[in-house]
Amino acid sequence: MSGWETYVRKVEPYVPGEQPKRKVIKLNTNENPYPPSPRVQKVLDGFDAEELRLYPDPEAADLIEAIALEKGLSKDQIFVGVGSDDVLAMSFLTFFGSDKPILFPDITYSFYDVWAELFRIPYVQIPLQKDFRICIEDYKRENGGIVIPNPNAPTGIAESLDAIEEILKTNPDSVVIIDEAYVDFGTKSALALLPKYENLLVVQTFSKSRSLAGSRIGYAMGSPKLISYLNDCKYSFNSYTMDRLTIQIGKASMEDTPYFKEQVDRIVETREWAKEQLRRLGFTFLDSKANFIFASHAKMAAAVIFAALKEKDIYVRYFNKPRIDNFLRITIGTKEEMERLFAALEEILQQA
Amino acid sequence: MSGWETYVRKVEPYVPGEQPKRKVIKLNTNENPYPPSPRVQKVLDGFDAEELRLYPDPEAADLIEAIALEKGLSKDQIFVGVGSDDVLAMSFLTFFGSDKPILFPDITYSFYDVWAELFRIPYVQIPLQKDFRICIEDYKRENGGIVIPNPNAPTGIAESLDAIEEILKTNPDSVVIIDEAYVDFGTKSALALLPKYENLLVVQTFSKSRSLAGSRIGYAMGSPKLISYLNDCKYSFNSYTMDRLTIQIGKASMEDTPYFKEQVDRIVETREWAKEQLRRLGFTFLDSKANFIFASHAKMAAAVIFAALKEKDIYVRYFNKPRIDNFLRITIGTKEEMERLFAALEEILQQA
Repeated sequence: MSGWETYVRKVEPYVPGEQPKRKVIKLNTNENPYPPSPRVQKVLDGFDAEELRLYPDPEAADLIEAIALEKGLSKDQIFVGVGSDDVLAMSFLTFFGSDKPILFPDITYSFYDVWAELFRIPYVQIPLQKDFRICIEDYKRENGGIVIPNPNAPTGIAESLDAIEEILKTNPDSVVIIDEAYVDFGTKSALALLPKYENLLVVQTFSKSRSLAGSRIGYAMGSPKLISYLNDCKYSFNSYTMDRLTIQIGKASMEDTPYFKEQVDRIVETREWAKEQLRRLGFTFLDSKANFIFASHAKMAAAVIFAALKEKDIYVRYFNKPRIDNFLRITIGTKEEMERLFAALEEILQQA
Repeated sequence: MSGWETYVRKVEPYVPGEQPKRKVIKLNTNENPYPPSPRVQKVLDGFDAEELRLYPDPEAADLIEAIALEKGLSKDQIFVGVGSDDVLAMSFLTFFGSDKPILFPDITYSFYDVWAELFRIPYVQIPLQKDFRICIEDYKRENGGIVIPNPNAPTGIAESLDAIEEILKTNPDSVVIIDEAYVDFGTKSALALLPKYENLLVVQTFSKSRSLAGSRIGYAMGSPKLISYLNDCKYSFNSYTMDRLTIQIGKASMEDTPYFKEQVDRIVETREWAKEQLRRLGFTFLDSKANFIFASHAKMAAAVIFAALKEKDIYVRYFNKPRIDNFLRITIGTKEEMERLFAALEEILQQA
């Protein structure tokens, strides 16, 4: 190893879900099957490329204002970043400086421990209960911060606002992050608790419910004090994270509430119908409130089904990890995509 | 102070140059006065917003391939990020883990010490010589890494490739970053040294010479080993930093070499003409090889000229810092913008 390598920060990076280049039925990374608001296309059609020669607004005010308006918050309560991953990474860097371990579930978004490792933050992964629910009592111990995804991924299970509040009540000295990437598909947001808890940070994204995974827009909402600390670190990292086009795309999307609601409703409807189909095929699954279902089959191993589906150009997600290695995480696609999935599953399960 | 605030990472953030919302002559943040390649507009005009519902390619392969082709490198020698600030921040985080201080000039891009503070990296700011040149001998001491901007900002002074190579020769155990944000305006790139030095990282940007400050695209070039370490950290921070539109915009721009050269030539021509004008008006200035000139007037304080220009809606940059507080950094605009600047200066200097 060369001398310069000694002090390199060595990490085990997060591995994102596959992005196949061929045309497949893609139910593996929880994208939205519907296009973004037609207003986004209008932004593109009317955009003068000459504008791009100038730096963007470092405050991304147009985007922040649109979010503030939609969420009923003030502008100083909102922080935006390059996807909620960027927002969460910056939050870990900003808020988790204690020597005490931060806490999050053992089965959850697999980026949390990656960020903790990257920033050398001590952490404890709290085992989910047998039924894959979060045990609130487990979060009543000394800690340097807490991250709760609600609903959780890949389980899809949502915790009640009362449960979230109990965590906040018992942890006034920790920053508590509620990661609400999937909240729009049927979970109560912790936003309602913001007026009461200065240490609460709620993180959401445009990637799922707003069909803009390809634009990279995430945001955090919290007390002005929390947001101000987050901004200080962000401005110490990169002043201009949001480019000119993305600011306008995000604004246009956030302003189109009727379209947003319509697409979310369609996905929720398809999800509930998909649950019936899975049941019919002999799957068991957790009660997902997200845009995916985490399902297991009694007669055929998840890894086998996963590979067989891939053969048929249908991509779902499989995690080869303890406790969840017999589950498939299936993103809710269009009704047509799901029909093709179930037809394929029916065929595959005949071998069971 | 609340309990949760104790462990917040507290920093003094970088303050970017003003982005006025009114129409002004904007010569304060080194943007390019010409629009990006017409191919960028074509990307926008032909882009189907529905594509944005899917995550982008985490490897940004289209963009990386275009850069590799233009620079004569292989794909595994290139890293891209959200502006060169993102690339540099990630490089500081990845490479500067030693307890020994990293070295960079005292008068330079004011983000270097901000990143060092953010990541708690020890650093020493090496004073530039009286003539504002870098003294190569000063970089022959124990260190945990080196950052050399070439040409330097805000001075605009370029160092020779021999000088850069001497730093590399004497520092085989440090990662040496050459920040070439302004290299296209007349400095030899350290790219020529890449085959010889595994520890050399060359950072460039689309913001200045490619008129895409508003799109946020920067890139680093180095040995496959260096780039691989950088990617590991990047994938541990945010898998998808480059959005779908930006990848295509950057590709289109990088592929239009004739347009790029034409605009750079125009700016260099205007810069050399501007030097004559400044001389005529009694300014002294450093020999800039960048798209700005760092100038001082014997009879009127820089702060006074700065304020007077602002009154006339002409924005230049003023740094209220030791040794450079009698200088103005003037971005090279179009010939017309510069003519209006000089007319304004002529008027202002009549009060001197």
